[in-house]
Amino acid sequence: MPVVAVVGDGQLARMMQTEAIELGIETRVLAGAPDESAAQVFGDVRIGDYTDLADLKAIAEGADAVTFDHEHVPNEFAQTLIDAGVAVEPRPEALIFAQDKLEQRRRLADLGAPVPEFAPITSPADAQAFWHQVDGAVCLKATRGGYDGHGVWFPSSESECSELVADLLDRDVPLMAERKIAFDRELSAMVARNRSGEVAAWPVVESQQDDGICRVAISPAPELDDEIARECRDLACRIAEELDVTGVLAVELFEAGGKIQVNELAMRPHNTGHWTQDGCVTSQFEQHLRAVLDWPLGSTAPTAPVTVMVNTLGGEQQPEMPVAERVAEVMRRYPQVKVHLYGKTYRAGRKMGHVNVAADTLEEALAVAEDAAHFIVNAAWLERRAEGE
Amino acid sequence: MPVVAVVGDGQLARMMQTEAIELGIETRVLAGAPDESAAQVFGDVRIGDYTDLADLKAIAEGADAVTFDHEHVPNEFAQTLIDAGVAVEPRPEALIFAQDKLEQRRRLADLGAPVPEFAPITSPADAQAFWHQVDGAVCLKATRGGYDGHGVWFPSSESECSELVADLLDRDVPLMAERKIAFDRELSAMVARNRSGEVAAWPVVESQQDDGICRVAISPAPELDDEIARECRDLACRIAEELDVTGVLAVELFEAGGKIQVNELAMRPHNTGHWTQDGCVTSQFEQHLRAVLDWPLGSTAPTAPVTVMVNTLGGEQQPEMPVAERVAEVMRRYPQVKVHLYGKTYRAGRKMGHVNVAADTLEEALAVAEDAAHFIVNAAWLERRAEGE
Ligand SMILES: Nc1ncnc2c1ncn2[C@@H]1O[C@H](COP(=O)(O)OP(=O)(O)OP(=O)(O)O)[C@@H](O)[C@H]1O
Ligand SMILES: Nc1ncnc2c1ncn2[C@@H]1O[C@H](COP(=O)(O)OP(=O)(O)OP(=O)(O)O)[C@@H](O)[C@H]1O
Ligand SMILES: [Mg+2]
Ligand SMILES: [Mg+2]
Repeated sequence: MPVVAVVGDGQLARMMQTEAIELGIETRVLAGAPDESAAQVFGDVRIGDYTDLADLKAIAEGADAVTFDHEHVPNEFAQTLIDAGVAVEPRPEALIFAQDKLEQRRRLADLGAPVPEFAPITSPADAQAFWHQVDGAVCLKATRGGYDGHGVWFPSSESECSELVADLLDRDVPLMAERKIAFDRELSAMVARNRSGEVAAWPVVESQQDDGICRVAISPAPELDDEIARECRDLACRIAEELDVTGVLAVELFEAGGKIQVNELAMRPHNTGHWTQDGCVTSQFEQHLRAVLDWPLGSTAPTAPVTVMVNTLGGEQQPEMPVAERVAEVMRRYPQVKVHLYGKTYRAGRKMGHVNVAADTLEEALAVAEDAAHFIVNAAWLERRAEGE
Repeated sequence: MPVVAVVGDGQLARMMQTEAIELGIETRVLAGAPDESAAQVFGDVRIGDYTDLADLKAIAEGADAVTFDHEHVPNEFAQTLIDAGVAVEPRPEALIFAQDKLEQRRRLADLGAPVPEFAPITSPADAQAFWHQVDGAVCLKATRGGYDGHGVWFPSSESECSELVADLLDRDVPLMAERKIAFDRELSAMVARNRSGEVAAWPVVESQQDDGICRVAISPAPELDDEIARECRDLACRIAEELDVTGVLAVELFEAGGKIQVNELAMRPHNTGHWTQDGCVTSQFEQHLRAVLDWPLGSTAPTAPVTVMVNTLGGEQQPEMPVAERVAEVMRRYPQVKVHLYGKTYRAGRKMGHVNVAADTLEEALAVAEDAAHFIVNAAWLERRAEGE
């Protein structure tokens, strides 16, 4: 059986491992430390640094495919591996558009894909000009290195904008600006593609962010117009093809007034695809492995009318009740809840795990998933609120 | 989070690990060698011997529960651990009825559960007497140590029976005899129970054996009378309670002329429960972990109208096509097939893996699962046969 080397030690690598075990695929992981989320659960753990070429070479040695759970491997090193005959999936030519938001905006605009108005920002003067161009509806972004909303700013005045830009440029943060979209909601169109060119699309999902961090995903996106759903899927498939993406691709989208615009791209399993673990024939983690091995892709048919995923993010303070007890309480109240935990140490705002709930109706799935996640985070049920209504 | 120690290194331990990862449960495994099925995929692997008390003590040290993927741990050692305060689940008082077929027959008969006529066999004379008692419909069984039909014999004449018994007793095989049942089919009623006494039952499954080894399981058992289904489930729940079983219990049953009789008990995840991985809200492996930790049990609701499991047993000879290629071919033809492989070296008749297929109809699920499993074993499709019909 083939060997897949995963670079990165977070929950995405961890959840790839569960699927790899069942498929009989051999795996190894390049992790920063032995107690990281993925390092806890791989049999073959190499401690090292993904910005060190020697460590990358070592993990790639003899692997049938090398893939990632994040986008931060230096592209020149990925290219060095490819030149030496290693199947690195996705390749840097594609990955660049998930790494650099400005490159992404330019490339998608070239493709004619709908994107918000944008501009590179290399001086406070650039920012001022853009401020006027969009009437103050400015979203400022670090072009690289952002995640979970870190690296996204919405300045509320022209002077705040200028000062922020001056400060960020001072600290060598590479910047761009784009129009702040008054979206109705955010969607996510996920597909997978293998090197042979096969593409498979999941149902389009609604995703909800809190402070820039994904908290809820609902599959399928409720009351999504069929036309728009098709447009989202077609767009994601086209991007996968045009950019020669391999593995899972998430296209984050804004929906506003019946129109869609691309927010950003991720080329790996994505938070808005976690629902597939318990609501779909093929999970995004299995699909990613199949895709990077150039195996045929699995069915993306849902197994329930609605599946809701809610993240369990670290709260301001960890409750006194031990997490195992909180999980047991959730299981007692909701036998249908699927709990996923990442083995991470507690930190406020950190993605510690998620729950998935499949149900016949949106109302039920959402109510149960929200309550279950709330209890895991807070050791208290939400429900009182509803009772009081 | 709690720590579960698993004694035994086969596919059942391996598949527990995939569920443990998602639940965030810490695990360790006591394995005979580092390349065994489960040892390949646990982060914490202790190489040792499950008949060695020191090795058992070491794996149990600090674990919140100790459980098994087979029934062969000496009960006195399990008791020693329990006396030292370790939660060994299931306990030896229960496990004995899965270890010893004669003890099981006696205990179930005491409970008034339907079992075939049976007798202990300690001499050829005992066998002769039993032969006449059941008019030659004799099934001879090793009371201990049998698996996959090894340890089950159907002598076809009185003299063959006597000779076989003499020979087996000579080799110190502990024996019993029971009536050979002309069953219509075999069923499996699976439940899980935790120490707090909660019991959850899955739908009753039809299982098909080839040469005494499970090959196919169909959930739910096709056209099973509602009354009989209820009887099977009630019986399994009652056995779990009366025997104080913890973890997963499989009750293997014969159905003959609208009546059921118990064949044997297994107190661990069971081959006839593999379908739950891809056809049920809670898989038997997750349920087993929850049960042995005394966590509340998960929903046993199916997620599809029918799910069929077919084992991929090693054939007489391994095909030339590499297994990865065979798997890829199956994925190409059947995007809905779920492939599970155990990482085992090839051996004729060995359980190497299984496939699960969920579908709307029995016909579809069965046809696809049989064809897929056949290809993985033989590198050839079944379907020509059907075309030729
Ligand atoms: N142009 C915009 N207009 C309005 N809101 C925006 C805009 N761009 C981003 N946002 C909001 O900020 C969130 C985070 O933005 P983005 O996805 O670009 O950041 P990120 O830090 O890379 O996040 P991720 O964790 O998804 O990689 C978006 O999901 C959206 O809610
Ligand atoms: N009394 C009987 N009459 C007819 N067939 C029987 C009888 N007992 C067992 N068999 C057949 O032999 C098969 C194996 O028997 P049994 O389950 O007792 O053996 P085992 O080796 O312990 O198998 P397992 O792998 O299920 O533990 C049964 O599934 C059934 O097909
Ligand atoms: Mg984003
Ligand atoms: Mg049996």
